Amino acid sequence: MKSRTLWSSLTAIVFAVSAVTAQKHSGTPPEVSPMPMKPEMTEIWEPEVTVVEPAKTLGDAPSDAITLFDGTNFDQWVSSKDSTSAAPWKIVDNDHFEVVPGSGNIQTKMKFGDVQLHIEFSAPDKVEGESQGRGNSGLFLQNRYELQILDSYQNRTYRNGQAGSIYKDKAPLVNAMRGPLEWNTYDVVYRAPRFKDDGQLDTPATITVLHNGVLVQNNTTINGNTYYIGLHNYPSAHGDDVISLQDHGNKTQFRNIWLRKL
Amino acid sequence: MKSRTLWSSLTAIVFAVSAVTAQKHSGTPPEVSPMPMKPEMTEIWEPEVTVVEPAKTLGDAPSDAITLFDGTNFDQWVSSKDSTSAAPWKIVDNDHFEVVPGSGNIQTKMKFGDVQLHIEFSAPDKVEGESQGRGNSGLFLQNRYELQILDSYQNRTYRNGQAGSIYKDKAPLVNAMRGPLEWNTYDVVYRAPRFKDDGQLDTPATITVLHNGVLVQNNTTINGNTYYIGLHNYPSAHGDDVISLQDHGNKTQFRNIWLRKL
Amino acid sequence: MKSRTLWSSLTAIVFAVSAVTAQKHSGTPPEVSPMPMKPEMTEIWEPEVTVVEPAKTLGDAPSDAITLFDGTNFDQWVSSKDSTSAAPWKIVDNDHFEVVPGSGNIQTKMKFGDVQLHIEFSAPDKVEGESQGRGNSGLFLQNRYELQILDSYQNRTYRNGQAGSIYKDKAPLVNAMRGPLEWNTYDVVYRAPRFKDDGQLDTPATITVLHNGVLVQNNTTINGNTYYIGLHNYPSAHGDDVISLQDHGNKTQFRNIWLRKL
Amino acid sequence: MKSRTLWSSLTAIVFAVSAVTAQKHSGTPPEVSPMPMKPEMTEIWEPEVTVVEPAKTLGDAPSDAITLFDGTNFDQWVSSKDSTSAAPWKIVDNDHFEVVPGSGNIQTKMKFGDVQLHIEFSAPDKVEGESQGRGNSGLFLQNRYELQILDSYQNRTYRNGQAGSIYKDKAPLVNAMRGPLEWNTYDVVYRAPRFKDDGQLDTPATITVLHNGVLVQNNTTINGNTYYIGLHNYPSAHGDDVISLQDHGNKTQFRNIWLRKL
Repeated sequence: MKSRTLWSSLTAIVFAVSAVTAQKHSGTPPEVSPMPMKPEMTEIWEPEVTVVEPAKTLGDAPSDAITLFDGTNFDQWVSSKDSTSAAPWKIVDNDHFEVVPGSGNIQTKMKFGDVQLHIEFSAPDKVEGESQGRGNSGLFLQNRYELQILDSYQNRTYRNGQAGSIYKDKAPLVNAMRGPLEWNTYDVVYRAPRFKDDGQLDTPATITVLHNGVLVQNNTTINGNTYYIGLHNYPSAHGDDVISLQDHGNKTQFRNIWLRKL
Repeated sequence: MKSRTLWSSLTAIVFAVSAVTAQKHSGTPPEVSPMPMKPEMTEIWEPEVTVVEPAKTLGDAPSDAITLFDGTNFDQWVSSKDSTSAAPWKIVDNDHFEVVPGSGNIQTKMKFGDVQLHIEFSAPDKVEGESQGRGNSGLFLQNRYELQILDSYQNRTYRNGQAGSIYKDKAPLVNAMRGPLEWNTYDVVYRAPRFKDDGQLDTPATITVLHNGVLVQNNTTINGNTYYIGLHNYPSAHGDDVISLQDHGNKTQFRNIWLRKL
Repeated sequence: MKSRTLWSSLTAIVFAVSAVTAQKHSGTPPEVSPMPMKPEMTEIWEPEVTVVEPAKTLGDAPSDAITLFDGTNFDQWVSSKDSTSAAPWKIVDNDHFEVVPGSGNIQTKMKFGDVQLHIEFSAPDKVEGESQGRGNSGLFLQNRYELQILDSYQNRTYRNGQAGSIYKDKAPLVNAMRGPLEWNTYDVVYRAPRFKDDGQLDTPATITVLHNGVLVQNNTTINGNTYYIGLHNYPSAHGDDVISLQDHGNKTQFRNIWLRKL
Repeated sequence: MKSRTLWSSLTAIVFAVSAVTAQKHSGTPPEVSPMPMKPEMTEIWEPEVTVVEPAKTLGDAPSDAITLFDGTNFDQWVSSKDSTSAAPWKIVDNDHFEVVPGSGNIQTKMKFGDVQLHIEFSAPDKVEGESQGRGNSGLFLQNRYELQILDSYQNRTYRNGQAGSIYKDKAPLVNAMRGPLEWNTYDVVYRAPRFKDDGQLDTPATITVLHNGVLVQNNTTINGNTYYIGLHNYPSAHGDDVISLQDHGNKTQFRNIWLRKL
């Protein structure tokens, strides 16, 4: 405390002297520019940074996360065909769930914008089909922008349609897919698109994705709705929206899904 | 001088006192944070900003510009078909030049990257054709990225192909085209794409365009070579390159072309 | 019309055949990828681009502009000290207005966000003072972010405080200032900062400035309120706000002020 | 194969018919725009995406990583005081290493630009000091840009100086620090600054950081060298450079360090 008072007094003197003697508005460059600072002048103390308790294990949900699936129930999910109906997929061993082919997509009850999201998935244990026909599903951010889920382990397909791609928009940087009997992780940092008051796009969505800890999308710009056919675009403004998972006819498995609102 | 000496002395005292009395590394937030600064601490004097003499009239070349056409000669241009041949277009009245249909594109002798560019153009005096058939030409930045030139005065065409568009990529914000007997201006701020050492795209090109003083492209991202057919992309890395003007079979007129390297 | 019908029929046939014969989901790369397109597939026709009538002379207001000063009246301006009072500056010769030193800043009645703005200014005819003391004024976008106005003609000052600078943030790329008996122009493309719902900054403001037609700020990021003392920041969220002009004690002159909402 | 031949033939017919009948350059908007595409037209197959084998455990090095420390040796490190000398810190239990206070910083032998980097660190087991005096170290990307390492567990300091901050530039989004007897992870995606040929900054560095799996920097812009005193800036151009770890007088511990060149 005392030190601060002394400092304040000295500062006051210096400022006073300075005010009297400074060459106001001189066009001559000073000998040293900019004037030297003190370390404390670039220390920002307020507001205090919020504490978040991380999980014990990398990949698990920190204290401020919303758990979307912990192995036991579909409380956070509904059917996309009929959002008043329960999610029609199958929970297995109180550990993970599995797509029920033909039952349709499922989606979260809650709506989201910018998120950090973690999801784990596994291709069907039995390898069937090839290219897009093998282990196909997808994670739709805001129900529109698909981060592709596919069994891309030793399975050639178009580069902008394999696991880790933004579907038919951006190929992944590398193919970091695990074999069909193993679990994969996606760690996603997603920034939603912004729209102007008149509905026009202001800034497009961007996404960063780690696939099994390996960077596959690096602050990638998403060029709009990830249509199967045709040029992608942002047809209209939207706010927060549900996250959906795709039933593409394959028994893809999922577990440990959580997100943090950003 | 004297004032500065006095100031220096006082600063020295203050720093010395501060060093002795400061609570090193205290985890208690200071009463005021960050520590107040003096105005001179955010004044940057060096290096002195380079002087450029602007033109007397808005739209004319400033002192640091490279003049590409001043009305009198094609010294800065060659034929695109054969870069050892003179530009095959027609200079009129020592004032402007005109496309000679069928003679092919023309291009600059010099190569450029980032530029501020000014160009004036006029649709053919005689209005013929419609849509893309009317007054069609184009300015190709780095010989690849087309800022469309078209007679878009009361002439409907696809929005991403009219005057002020980045051809088949981005429509202009508005249609600011003048009638066919009047001159138009484009004021362009162009940032070339960057490529990595391995040839991959690092950052795409961007462009800002004022058409007759009206903003039509606002730091727009260019998605690659502006192909007539198919998806645009950046097929390979390139450095500085020529600027070319398109012979699309119409007698488009040009004058007062200059640029500044950025 | 007929051609389109024929085309549609053929397309229908092709799609039908394709559906039957395509190797669904084959993991073998096709011979040509992506499949060739037709030119019309990248033509976007809707919505039609809005027509704006440009001014006859570069620098004058186009048809969709809001005129803030046309030489004759202060109808769009009030005193910043008291926004219920008329602007306390002086209109000269029904041509321009002049700062009345000591009367305080003036500001627009209307509030704005993203704008394209044109303003003309002249340093006081009589050259007095030096550095920041000479011909000092400023244009505050959203009443917070100062595009510096200064007589920077043969007048050394700190680089991030001269004409064309974002005050104490970004120096201009070059010094394009005219002499004190001449008029200068600023052509500005300004993007307002965006804030999140919780008040935090989402994206900072950016600005492009042509000074007498010469690029001096190129999509520059503005780091926050342009304080005279201390580090700049965005202390709190805000929406559209007035544009203000600074009374810094010098008789700076202004004319021909207009903007377009973006 | 057969199907493709049939498709090709039909396409040829369609294109031929189209060429004859299309209303060339019609200014009348087509009934449907853009012309419908086929799914294969947005499939990009080449080049095939490179396969990377991820680690078995999240946080461990994938197959294309450069291991900087695996517990056993300092082969990849030297003393920063004298780059011809071995790293003067202490390897413990063939598991991790520890700062030897007073011995100075250590740095990699290799130089890097854009990287994905993983590092694990633990504050000294014995808690001593407070604020910046407690468990202080730092990771300097390209030997200039410090990602702060500090014992920020229940230890208040300035927000832009705590663990996960870009030192004196950007505070972390949250404080995800573990207690002093536990290991922390940083997963970093770093993009180096780009410079122009004339040495001026082209684009600043950016960084994304997960601290114990929690996002603390989200594609954050780094404003230059992270000086202890004064305004940060990019004083001069540089290429790839070493990564260094700071000796700040505390026995911070490190393990499992690897990176991938991006």
